[in-house]
Amino acid sequence: MNTVIETILNHRSIRNFEDRALTNEQIKTIVECAQAASTSSYIQAYSIIGVKDPEKKKKLAELAGNQSYVAENGHFFVFCADLYRHEIAGELENKDVEESLESTEKFMVAVIDASLAAQNASVAAESMGLGICYIGGLRNQLGEVSELLNTPNRVIPLFGLSVGYPAADSGKKTRLPFEHIYHEDQYQADQEVYINQLKQYNETISNYYKERTNGQRTDTWTSQMANSLKTPRRMYMKEFVEKKGFNKN
Amino acid sequence: MNTVIETILNHRSIRNFEDRALTNEQIKTIVECAQAASTSSYIQAYSIIGVKDPEKKKKLAELAGNQSYVAENGHFFVFCADLYRHEIAGELENKDVEESLESTEKFMVAVIDASLAAQNASVAAESMGLGICYIGGLRNQLGEVSELLNTPNRVIPLFGLSVGYPAADSGKKTRLPFEHIYHEDQYQADQEVYINQLKQYNETISNYYKERTNGQRTDTWTSQMANSLKTPRRMYMKEFVEKKGFNKN
Repeated sequence: MNTVIETILNHRSIRNFEDRALTNEQIKTIVECAQAASTSSYIQAYSIIGVKDPEKKKKLAELAGNQSYVAENGHFFVFCADLYRHEIAGELENKDVEESLESTEKFMVAVIDASLAAQNASVAAESMGLGICYIGGLRNQLGEVSELLNTPNRVIPLFGLSVGYPAADSGKKTRLPFEHIYHEDQYQADQEVYINQLKQYNETISNYYKERTNGQRTDTWTSQMANSLKTPRRMYMKEFVEKKGFNKN
Repeated sequence: MNTVIETILNHRSIRNFEDRALTNEQIKTIVECAQAASTSSYIQAYSIIGVKDPEKKKKLAELAGNQSYVAENGHFFVFCADLYRHEIAGELENKDVEESLESTEKFMVAVIDASLAAQNASVAAESMGLGICYIGGLRNQLGEVSELLNTPNRVIPLFGLSVGYPAADSGKKTRLPFEHIYHEDQYQADQEVYINQLKQYNETISNYYKERTNGQRTDTWTSQMANSLKTPRRMYMKEFVEKKGFNKN
């Protein structure tokens, strides 16, 4: 196992950081690594906003559902889907690009592009001894987040990334079994096999919680998922992304 | 610079592979690395289909627009957004999760999850001396691709990933300037600054092509983008993803 794979496999989300800011050099390296990720037909459909202003970070922490580690970390990145520069490119070149930019396809492209960049940033940060935590909670109130970060139309903040020196370690959570995630030649949709895999995973997860909580907690993965999914969240999203010029046609 | 960052910064897309298959162990390591990526609230909303069958690979290469390296490589992965197992979880737990699964928010979650996993897979593969190329062309004809891979509802193949031993090196393409991709504290939308950055980048790109083609090619980034975006592509996508149970509300 090489050090790259070691770094990747050693990932865990860190939610408790030392009060020690990243240097500009560290930030630059992380962003350069983000930019080195593949991008669909060279489109580079994302932007990264680094938030240093403590007031802004505090406000973002509140908007993300009072997650302290959004404010307290070494640096806070916001990854955005961004087709604004492509609108400008259309204007500069006198070409009508609106229908493309507003397509579901290009929405997917921008979300994929931003995510590939973010994962490179994460792995790079972790290789530097830093910890990371993705902040999907930023999507709780994207209208307010957009206003705070002054993002124009055709830009959507997708998630945050808290980065910093870990103040406390955290455990690695066991993933779905390899055979369940990975299919060969075609999707393995045989219900019996599929459900058995999920039930086995339930047992693994249940034991994991039991051990870590002295038997207090024994819930399964499917119960966690069902309980979380039974209440639809962020249902304003469809209207929001369309209003921002994405995912319309 | 550590070896992880070196690996990440050294990325280039490889489109020409040796005729040498990945071992099962290599495939397993790559998938394990994919699974180690962060996942939104533990949802793990993706699946990976590895395609070995030469006939299937040939067919996928055709569907992706006759890209030979979809068929000719060491292994071909397809990364899918997957909320099918969450539908099953809802059934097992007797909870109604449909509205959640069909939301734009969960569509974004699944696309992000799959992309984070894919980028881990890519970096891991590259660290093993392999080359990679993302295949967005898979989205040219997703109906046919879904049928070929037998994906059920609530599963959408998002992109392929060709992996293998590089048979030829390729150049690194210069990314947008750091100052353009990275904003501090708020989005830098001052049109004059923004357009100047794009124009500078145009010059960089134009010189890059000029050098590599003995002056034959001199196009700029904004012209490439505008020319590509003026023709909307994959406009069936909105209907397709909705039909598959995503992005509906």
